[in-house]
Amino acid sequence: MSTKTVGILGGMGPAAGADFARLFVQACAEQLKASGAVVTDQAYPEHWLAQLPIADRSAALLAPEAAEDPFAMMCTGMDKLQALGATAVAMACNTAHAWHERLQQAYPRLQLLHIARVVAESLQQQGHRACMLLATQGTYRIGLYDEALAACGITVHLPQDAERELLMQGIYQGVKADRLNLARTCFSQVARAMRLRHGDVPLIMGCTEIPLALPGAPEVEGLPLVDPAWELARALARVAYSQ
Amino acid sequence: MSTKTVGILGGMGPAAGADFARLFVQACAEQLKASGAVVTDQAYPEHWLAQLPIADRSAALLAPEAAEDPFAMMCTGMDKLQALGATAVAMACNTAHAWHERLQQAYPRLQLLHIARVVAESLQQQGHRACMLLATQGTYRIGLYDEALAACGITVHLPQDAERELLMQGIYQGVKADRLNLARTCFSQVARAMRLRHGDVPLIMGCTEIPLALPGAPEVEGLPLVDPAWELARALARVAYSQ
Repeated sequence: MSTKTVGILGGMGPAAGADFARLFVQACAEQLKASGAVVTDQAYPEHWLAQLPIADRSAALLAPEAAEDPFAMMCTGMDKLQALGATAVAMACNTAHAWHERLQQAYPRLQLLHIARVVAESLQQQGHRACMLLATQGTYRIGLYDEALAACGITVHLPQDAERELLMQGIYQGVKADRLNLARTCFSQVARAMRLRHGDVPLIMGCTEIPLALPGAPEVEGLPLVDPAWELARALARVAYSQ
Repeated sequence: MSTKTVGILGGMGPAAGADFARLFVQACAEQLKASGAVVTDQAYPEHWLAQLPIADRSAALLAPEAAEDPFAMMCTGMDKLQALGATAVAMACNTAHAWHERLQQAYPRLQLLHIARVVAESLQQQGHRACMLLATQGTYRIGLYDEALAACGITVHLPQDAERELLMQGIYQGVKADRLNLARTCFSQVARAMRLRHGDVPLIMGCTEIPLALPGAPEVEGLPLVDPAWELARALARVAYSQ
């Protein structure tokens, strides 16, 4: 199978970036096996993970005048990935997709995948009509998933204000500060409350830090958890193996 | 804390490369916490993971006239990592260290870490005088760990011929072919036999595919397992945060 070189723009955060590389490798192996090809080291597409100190995305969205703009460093990563021969790039961070349109315009020769569109199309293919969304304040503010889900005819349920604060605590004081127990407590509390309100519709873990702590919690047992990073990794693998 | 850009030469195999990126991020977080610094996305050093279709290392060592030489593609990766600004590089593959000396000579400006030396120094610091080594045929043939362990005054016990075949089966038909159950069976059988012969001395999992399947097997319960990739990741983090 011929392959294309692809890139991963990571560092947002670095644990999520490394985890996305793992998911991409897994998605490639699944694709190889599904096509009947032998899985060897050399059967994987060339891929590069760029882990750069990109400024905080949520802070830049919530207080653009006070916080550092992550866009310039994102462009540094895109420049280098393009120079390395990447034809497509995925960003291992939901909130970063606030800059998706600007980045795609700045790099017209690179195919920049869009995490929410990939998720919405996957839910649609599975026949779902409603879902719940856990994400950062920045992701809610920009309505990252709203448009993509609406375009696929899927209703999205969002957490209440206090629950959003709890999610931010789990992401920043929890995963990003390497305290996974705190993160799991925060995420599972919100998931439980939303499940009581909306029932067992798919729960989108719409920040790459959430799948690092939530799965396995008893509060989400039996609930369909959607990992957008996994959907994005599968989409990137499809591009890498496309003709 | 000021940081240096570092690189990871991966693709050998890709799952091990992605796992090494995860270990490096974890090692950086531990170093940040140990130094009292706050762990944020921006506190991590810039790092790049190069996952290239590098030819099989064991095959090249065992049948150099028949197999493709991985050296040229390794150099492609080193060229690009150097161009990206890396000052130090780690290779997420034990067997690849057969080319360590040639690579280091070809790239004198890059510090190319050596996985066996890092492991030997760590065992020495912990006061160990003996260990067991699971590895590929290529790693045994080149005596990768022998010199480094001897230099630190540590005796190394190696598996018998049939056991080495079983390890190769676990690595190639198991992990590299994405069949982890087979891999675990092969690795744990060898570990059990060696443990009976040599006692509970540290077991070096000297191929990056082995830690993906062996830990957690009942045959190694209570046995000190040494993951060279983790030791290498910690060493790379120390370099990235060094002044």
